[in-house]
Amino acid sequence: MRPKTTRRIFLRNTARGMTAAALASAVSTTHIAEAGFLGSNQTKLKLGMASYTFREFGLEQTLSMTKRLGLERIAFKDFHLPLDSPAEQIRATAARVRQEGLELYGCGVVYMKTRAEVDRAFDYAREAGMSVIIGVPEHALVSYVEQKIREYGIKVAIHNHGPGDEVYPTPQSAYDRIKALDPRFGLCVDVGHTQRAGVDPARSILALADRVLDVHIKDVTAATGEGRTVEMGRGVIDLPAVCRALRSIRYGGTVAFEFEKDGKDPLPGVAESVGYVRGVLAAL
Amino acid sequence: MRPKTTRRIFLRNTARGMTAAALASAVSTTHIAEAGFLGSNQTKLKLGMASYTFREFGLEQTLSMTKRLGLERIAFKDFHLPLDSPAEQIRATAARVRQEGLELYGCGVVYMKTRAEVDRAFDYAREAGMSVIIGVPEHALVSYVEQKIREYGIKVAIHNHGPGDEVYPTPQSAYDRIKALDPRFGLCVDVGHTQRAGVDPARSILALADRVLDVHIKDVTAATGEGRTVEMGRGVIDLPAVCRALRSIRYGGTVAFEFEKDGKDPLPGVAESVGYVRGVLAAL
Repeated sequence: MRPKTTRRIFLRNTARGMTAAALASAVSTTHIAEAGFLGSNQTKLKLGMASYTFREFGLEQTLSMTKRLGLERIAFKDFHLPLDSPAEQIRATAARVRQEGLELYGCGVVYMKTRAEVDRAFDYAREAGMSVIIGVPEHALVSYVEQKIREYGIKVAIHNHGPGDEVYPTPQSAYDRIKALDPRFGLCVDVGHTQRAGVDPARSILALADRVLDVHIKDVTAATGEGRTVEMGRGVIDLPAVCRALRSIRYGGTVAFEFEKDGKDPLPGVAESVGYVRGVLAAL
Repeated sequence: MRPKTTRRIFLRNTARGMTAAALASAVSTTHIAEAGFLGSNQTKLKLGMASYTFREFGLEQTLSMTKRLGLERIAFKDFHLPLDSPAEQIRATAARVRQEGLELYGCGVVYMKTRAEVDRAFDYAREAGMSVIIGVPEHALVSYVEQKIREYGIKVAIHNHGPGDEVYPTPQSAYDRIKALDPRFGLCVDVGHTQRAGVDPARSILALADRVLDVHIKDVTAATGEGRTVEMGRGVIDLPAVCRALRSIRYGGTVAFEFEKDGKDPLPGVAESVGYVRGVLAAL
């Protein structure tokens, strides 16, 4: 699968008489940039916070705990900025986040069951200056979401939610719906829910590499629907393999910590998890 | 350097007519066991807590935070059990620790400036069932400490304290004092203070392997006296190299987290550090 824009650049460059090697390089770089990857000169994964982790806390505590963990990127769950907020409030909150030195790169998980909910999500993301919506659009809305992606220039990463999810249980189930669409339409691979569905998350990342736009990283107690979030390294997921897969596809999006355990006191557990991933990356 | 007891076993086995290969294996295993290492069938490092981390907290909170981190071993700084406690209280506290499923493997750092302080430390450790005293004996007391090691069968690991320490600034400075003594007299390599002294901690571990009996693991902001403890992975120490060195010498003692930062709220930072080491070990 090669997105249309890449094909256009390919043809334009061919017309300019580039060598085959230069062409291959140009096409590959363009394709990578479009899909949210980085060039080969950058291998450092960007770690961030999925603010669902801090769902029991207000905005200020959420920002300060994220900073304490040494993270520089955050995606908001609507607890921290409701989807129906007035535009002015969205802009003010986004400015507050940036004032703290954090990049408010996305929002989610955003459920989209109607066109109005799709419209609201895109307007919200645009006001906040977010580059990606981590979302769950109903199947019937996928084509409409693609239109909005083209109109707004904002990416949508479909989030898989495991064996109990009838819409997108696995990354593959989402991929199949969007693989022929705009390359800014992709996946948020939730590593935990992928494993809970009995699917190897590292293999999913490798197989669906061209559409991996966001990642929720975590560990779970079992590779079944019974699996629950646990501090990373204490569960069943082969997280070094996940990190290796992300590096090998030159993943350029955010690796976001979504820690579902200990809602009222999540900091020690998510800190242990952040440390774990940093340790894996340092040793790989 | 081969300790006397090993030599004795070597000679005894030779007399029994073992093959050369079996002999080599027996000698190496005996030597390793004496120095506090494990046999080749066990490569998993044992992680533990140096309770100095929780110096602002009482016993119960210290135990519960240690357990929350998934650690199973602890060494007490005297905040959690004063060195001059009556024998009965020492036994009761030790029993309480074990009731929580934790192994109270040692104590320290214990400063020993007089014979009476050496005596007190050994009596304390024996009452508590500890196998190692992490200590700083004055140079003039080293020979007396060796006598006590032989009498009590309790190990002493000399702790290096960095460039400001006139007694034992580096692991090598301690090693030089005990290298010809009983093999149960060794080092607690404080990785942070070693780095602060401008010495590579991984190289120290490899070079002084036969006497590494305990390890204080941490990270520091600078490889100078100005260096301060920081969450592991955020500082200057090559911690994957430290872990690789510990594995390669088949270190069988405890790798203890001594987190000096955020005394009143250390849990997130030490949790991040514990996660970091687990991540490094998983990926190595």
